[in-house]
Amino acid sequence: METTQTPPTLPGIFSLGFIRILLKGTSQVMFQNNAWTGLFILIGIFYGSYTDGNPAVAWGALVGLFMSTITGYLLKYPPVKGLQGLWGFNGILVGCALPTFLGNVPLMWLTIIIFSSMTTWVMYGMNLLLAPYKISSFTFPFVLTTWFILLASRTMHGLPNTGMGLPGLPLHFSTTLDTGFPNLLVYWLKEISQVFLVNSWVTGLFFLIGLAISNKWAAIWAAISSALALAIALLYQCNANDIANGLFGFSPVLTGIALGITFYTVNWRTAIWALLGIFATVFIQAGMDTFFAPFGIPTLTGPFCIATWLFLWPHLKLDKKILQHG
Amino acid sequence: METTQTPPTLPGIFSLGFIRILLKGTSQVMFQNNAWTGLFILIGIFYGSYTDGNPAVAWGALVGLFMSTITGYLLKYPPVKGLQGLWGFNGILVGCALPTFLGNVPLMWLTIIIFSSMTTWVMYGMNLLLAPYKISSFTFPFVLTTWFILLASRTMHGLPNTGMGLPGLPLHFSTTLDTGFPNLLVYWLKEISQVFLVNSWVTGLFFLIGLAISNKWAAIWAAISSALALAIALLYQCNANDIANGLFGFSPVLTGIALGITFYTVNWRTAIWALLGIFATVFIQAGMDTFFAPFGIPTLTGPFCIATWLFLWPHLKLDKKILQHG
Amino acid sequence: METTQTPPTLPGIFSLGFIRILLKGTSQVMFQNNAWTGLFILIGIFYGSYTDGNPAVAWGALVGLFMSTITGYLLKYPPVKGLQGLWGFNGILVGCALPTFLGNVPLMWLTIIIFSSMTTWVMYGMNLLLAPYKISSFTFPFVLTTWFILLASRTMHGLPNTGMGLPGLPLHFSTTLDTGFPNLLVYWLKEISQVFLVNSWVTGLFFLIGLAISNKWAAIWAAISSALALAIALLYQCNANDIANGLFGFSPVLTGIALGITFYTVNWRTAIWALLGIFATVFIQAGMDTFFAPFGIPTLTGPFCIATWLFLWPHLKLDKKILQHG
Repeated sequence: METTQTPPTLPGIFSLGFIRILLKGTSQVMFQNNAWTGLFILIGIFYGSYTDGNPAVAWGALVGLFMSTITGYLLKYPPVKGLQGLWGFNGILVGCALPTFLGNVPLMWLTIIIFSSMTTWVMYGMNLLLAPYKISSFTFPFVLTTWFILLASRTMHGLPNTGMGLPGLPLHFSTTLDTGFPNLLVYWLKEISQVFLVNSWVTGLFFLIGLAISNKWAAIWAAISSALALAIALLYQCNANDIANGLFGFSPVLTGIALGITFYTVNWRTAIWALLGIFATVFIQAGMDTFFAPFGIPTLTGPFCIATWLFLWPHLKLDKKILQHG
Repeated sequence: METTQTPPTLPGIFSLGFIRILLKGTSQVMFQNNAWTGLFILIGIFYGSYTDGNPAVAWGALVGLFMSTITGYLLKYPPVKGLQGLWGFNGILVGCALPTFLGNVPLMWLTIIIFSSMTTWVMYGMNLLLAPYKISSFTFPFVLTTWFILLASRTMHGLPNTGMGLPGLPLHFSTTLDTGFPNLLVYWLKEISQVFLVNSWVTGLFFLIGLAISNKWAAIWAAISSALALAIALLYQCNANDIANGLFGFSPVLTGIALGITFYTVNWRTAIWALLGIFATVFIQAGMDTFFAPFGIPTLTGPFCIATWLFLWPHLKLDKKILQHG
Repeated sequence: METTQTPPTLPGIFSLGFIRILLKGTSQVMFQNNAWTGLFILIGIFYGSYTDGNPAVAWGALVGLFMSTITGYLLKYPPVKGLQGLWGFNGILVGCALPTFLGNVPLMWLTIIIFSSMTTWVMYGMNLLLAPYKISSFTFPFVLTTWFILLASRTMHGLPNTGMGLPGLPLHFSTTLDTGFPNLLVYWLKEISQVFLVNSWVTGLFFLIGLAISNKWAAIWAAISSALALAIALLYQCNANDIANGLFGFSPVLTGIALGITFYTVNWRTAIWALLGIFATVFIQAGMDTFFAPFGIPTLTGPFCIATWLFLWPHLKLDKKILQHG
């Protein structure tokens, strides 16, 4: 006997339900489906970008979130995905990244509008591609489109790349790091805030609180992943400047939440698996830093995507729970 | 009831039918299946390469076209593909590219012979790979093999890379561009001729006429795509020297023909889709220019392949028509 | 009627059977399933690394071989694969590569332990990915993880990259080569020893003998491939220093064994196919040398993987024999 079920419908875009979808979209960057989590994250982004003197990041985040979500409506994608906020998490990251690395000019906003929309169908296409392997595209639609934009900006005088370093051969990396305990705490929290490209330990706290509202274990794994990534980066004496800005941790934080709680149930065996994944993510992060040096572009969350794919593909029977994200 | 159908057979290689297959192969670069289109394109290539003082390009095109087509015969691939000219369009591009970038030495010709043949089975393999996703390899077999050859030529003194720029970090791009209307017309037509790596506005005209013979809309989309790509490149102030040589338009021209008429039916919704695809192609072109700077090799039609895949993968129900090319 | 068959079981790790598995794993790098072949290869590795003054390579090989094999036990992968040695061949290469390119410090050994283990599940995942196309991942799990480690080492002061060249633009390649016959013999044998990153013509002899024990044709194809790769590299005047160290041959040797005897039956048609594959491998090797110059990392056996995939994907009906490796 089959139950007759009403197919889910999307709320109108001027309703409160639409706001909820936008907030859930924000929380989905960290694999949560919770409007309150999204609200805390947004507050963290606004706090961080205003105190950092670059409010365009926060407003860019809203534009990207709105455009990519609306695109799901326009293209009539399955509402069940939209209701979970899965159309917004790539777009919000495009909106965070472009004002971080490019100058605040009208063409930059045009670029956010078009490419954050594009992440929605790129995600849809990539998920079709990856469906037979039971994995998803994660934040890779954001990563891929933003790589192209930032690479392009080097040849486009209309998109000033004021926030990017110069291209250079991977020869010189900084080594002087203040490893006093209060500084380590700051690095540890910045690693969490950098998931949304924000460089602020306060924002990191907002994100942790937001995660804890949705899922205790998500917050715990974010905290563990950030700490472990920091320890590994210190042990191998990675690029000091990047450690201090939290750049060795944002991908491992996502890997940890993905492997530790989202795609596997929480237990000792999956915990070891997640820890190995975090270890690999730090190496992939360091490796991609070298690889992108001659082009002068950032890795974004590429290391998280690659590491998590490498650990989910073999899909060990570790009580896998959820198979799709996006 | 099934009709008994005679399976198609290939014409002998000394027959007129074989010439027709070669001409159709030429037209397939631009997604046409028309011998007259191919003839006009070939005339354009000969005109452009002779006036440019590098006739090896035209003869290389013929050698590559012949070898890759013959390879389909030798490997006994399905005749129905061969009759449409789908064995020749990658090979002719290898034959255009190598004399453009490498010196005219016997080893260059040996390289054309072997690698244009190779495009046929690389295409066959890639199409098997992409078949589950209902997309094709487009010109990527040409792009991939030629990237390897041109990269290799940097370490091979037997293949002088006289037609390539020096490797360098992506730091300096030219900005001075004459944007008088007659010049814009020239850039616009060169963007079309550069599909076959020819830098001649007259050749661009030949290509447009050839396209119009086969399909009015193909010519219209080629013209629109070239104009829009030029406008976007000017708006974002891309590398001036590349704009003047038509290098920002040849990939968008192919994207426009692919999305605007070949894989979707012509209507307003698919037109918007194609225009977005052209926008994305210009960014991917600019991005890949930066990416390839340290190696000093050209992007070839790689940006077209990537952009068109990203727009076909999600296969929106926009009345998709044809699902296979090659 | 189905026969009742006892499923294969793995030997205990303190038994002689486990030693046999390790030796077979060594031989699987060269597509053999033979403990004696593995023993000769190991002797060659020990001879080469001790005479070269870098014994860590040999001991690293043993550690990598052991860890990756044990990982197959721990993850409870199908015993039938483990019994053929298919869990060990990527790990042993990680163990050869890291001491070759990195300094002999404790962190280097920790890195070998973790990443050689990781090759086993990366291989398992990649093979699931490639299964629909009836090809395997070959040595790519080793290649990919080691690329990340070596790239990472450029930003990690804890992993001194004493064995790697400096990153640089691909501009200057050496041209002076002694092509006297005795030298050519040395280059030819070094091309075979470099399969395991050993630079010793004596080791090359050990490897040939080991191959001949398992399969006469494997030894013949290794010898032919190495000679042909050397001839092509000389014809195209490739980077002289790399020719002298056998670096243009180790990937073609593997391509030759793969196409000439492993995945196709030995006959004249498959021989032509294998020769074309070797030709392509030399170009892909030279191309990847250029591509990796700005990062200062080696290609490893990447060229072999790419070339062999390009020649197996189209799976011509050349009496294909075995479809899986790993």
